[in-house]
Amino acid sequence: MKRRDFFKNISSVALLGAIPSISKSQKLKPEYNWKMVTTWPKNFPGLGTGAQYLADTIQKLSGGRIKVSVYGAGELVPAFEIFDAVSQGVAELGHGSAYYWKGKNDTFQFFSTVPFGMTANEMNSWLYKGGGLKLWEEAYDSFNLLPMAAGNTGIQMGGWFNKEINSLSDLKGLKMRIPGLGGEVLRRAGGTPVNLPGGELFTALKTGTIDATEWVSPYNDLAFGLHKAAKYYYYPGWHEPGTTLECFINKKVFSQLPSDLQHIVKGAAKIANIDMLCDFISKNNDALEILKNKHKVDIRPYPEEVLNELYEISKDVVKELSVKSNFAKEVYDSYSSFKDKTKNWNDISIKPYLNL
Amino acid sequence: MKRRDFFKNISSVALLGAIPSISKSQKLKPEYNWKMVTTWPKNFPGLGTGAQYLADTIQKLSGGRIKVSVYGAGELVPAFEIFDAVSQGVAELGHGSAYYWKGKNDTFQFFSTVPFGMTANEMNSWLYKGGGLKLWEEAYDSFNLLPMAAGNTGIQMGGWFNKEINSLSDLKGLKMRIPGLGGEVLRRAGGTPVNLPGGELFTALKTGTIDATEWVSPYNDLAFGLHKAAKYYYYPGWHEPGTTLECFINKKVFSQLPSDLQHIVKGAAKIANIDMLCDFISKNNDALEILKNKHKVDIRPYPEEVLNELYEISKDVVKELSVKSNFAKEVYDSYSSFKDKTKNWNDISIKPYLNL
Repeated sequence: MKRRDFFKNISSVALLGAIPSISKSQKLKPEYNWKMVTTWPKNFPGLGTGAQYLADTIQKLSGGRIKVSVYGAGELVPAFEIFDAVSQGVAELGHGSAYYWKGKNDTFQFFSTVPFGMTANEMNSWLYKGGGLKLWEEAYDSFNLLPMAAGNTGIQMGGWFNKEINSLSDLKGLKMRIPGLGGEVLRRAGGTPVNLPGGELFTALKTGTIDATEWVSPYNDLAFGLHKAAKYYYYPGWHEPGTTLECFINKKVFSQLPSDLQHIVKGAAKIANIDMLCDFISKNNDALEILKNKHKVDIRPYPEEVLNELYEISKDVVKELSVKSNFAKEVYDSYSSFKDKTKNWNDISIKPYLNL
Repeated sequence: MKRRDFFKNISSVALLGAIPSISKSQKLKPEYNWKMVTTWPKNFPGLGTGAQYLADTIQKLSGGRIKVSVYGAGELVPAFEIFDAVSQGVAELGHGSAYYWKGKNDTFQFFSTVPFGMTANEMNSWLYKGGGLKLWEEAYDSFNLLPMAAGNTGIQMGGWFNKEINSLSDLKGLKMRIPGLGGEVLRRAGGTPVNLPGGELFTALKTGTIDATEWVSPYNDLAFGLHKAAKYYYYPGWHEPGTTLECFINKKVFSQLPSDLQHIVKGAAKIANIDMLCDFISKNNDALEILKNKHKVDIRPYPEEVLNELYEISKDVVKELSVKSNFAKEVYDSYSSFKDKTKNWNDISIKPYLNL
């Protein structure tokens, strides 16, 4: 709160007593001092900077009433332990992506991304307007967490390989870092999916601990130097067509906030959501140019036949998820019916336009 | 400000005197009572409701310190006079789109949409990350206005016609409502562009004052009942591939706000921006179904040849704008170079993905 507002508000009720003067240098302390734990290296381009942007936005919108300190993966807790940490109140906020917690509940993966599923704009529309966010809130409720969409990478790249992918059989025996449902699709195609935090990818690929990896897209992949550890860069990212990044807050912390600060936290997440997508769109172009022209990366489309086969496997994988529980079925139905409807509109709008 | 916050803040400095109790029913008045004038009918789906959503968001984020009353077109000032009204301080905020003010400066049109130009995501990326918003602020500065992107319709439809469009010559002599640069393209193709506020379209088309009209997309067009006034509905909206809606605020009003409320106003606009695009994406699908299945609307693609010819004309029209002033050149260069870069990334991401 600013000093002048303080006095403005004071004067709006009748004060009987006198108020001591506050010197200009005397700053009011934040009312809330929060920690945000993340699955990213501190300030990693796009994702880590996105978490920091969210923290800064909460602070600015609240006029400094909330201060958020951001911790990179491993600084306070390891990357894949942030969900439990915020659930248990070790930190107030977490920043990651829902598919990292599929061990808690397979259904969470719908709130990150689905192979051959919705794009960034469609995900946001489903979450905000199609009931998706409500289902996500229900999913995290028993973990004492309130989730918010807090970023989107847009469509990702297919991944980095040291061998050509000419047919589905080239995926057999491949040990690849690929999280979420995309990983399960790889398993069915005969590969071995592993999940690793982003910060470990370069070394794992370079030392042969993994044979291949996907990460995000040119902007992020260039930042990790993945082009120095692999020969081929395939597209499109069939397994992650518009991945939602999340911010979750401890529910007890959230419920104790006054209403305006609750709106500010949720609003800041929406601002961070649009900001990250714009960041990726603008930076991917520059990074792509560097990868192509400076590093002479061999950028290739997956063969159509491979994509078709992966699509068929994906349909099965996603459908099978839906029979695991009533809640999974509800999420699957909501996601699928929204996606089906967007197709008709895409067919006469963005698709013919981009093909001009 | 909430009563409990008031006391929380009071207690953060030492008070010597006593504070009288405030009864629960005694609400503190807003510190700012603002008027928002708009170019849309009050609460018109998507656009009018988007303006109202922005007003509500400002109010919620500010904890009621700012109250915004929204006025539909003509309620306080006519639709196309809101720019001057806010510039002169008759109202604090305006909600419209920049191409409506091309009479002030042709260059403004870049901040709405450009024929065969950027999509919604690309526009937002250019504005927020590519220097576009800074140029827009510069453009409105001498009018005492600060602009913000406050919504996007996504790609629009081509328009409603009572005759088939089989070749460019079918546009000759056509009196069509089509604003901005798209209108200038129609003029070069032999037509007569007119601009009318949305609320006047149905009657104008029905009575033959105009021969054809574009408006937005299924969600909005259905709301005006345009299918009852025309036979053919063409796509895609080559002239408006991702139209930015604006909110502008009187600069004097803005500059007198404390810093947190400045962040809240700008932040609320970003929230409204993503919200409107999601609203259009989710509602266009439902409306498209109704237009197709219930009203049996004849929905057609523009012939490829027509689109190619319109593209060539558009290139000239946009290029010619750029030589009008140094500032126009600067905006054109910024817009064009950003757009060119996005193409390379689109080609290996969203485009091949949507074509799967």
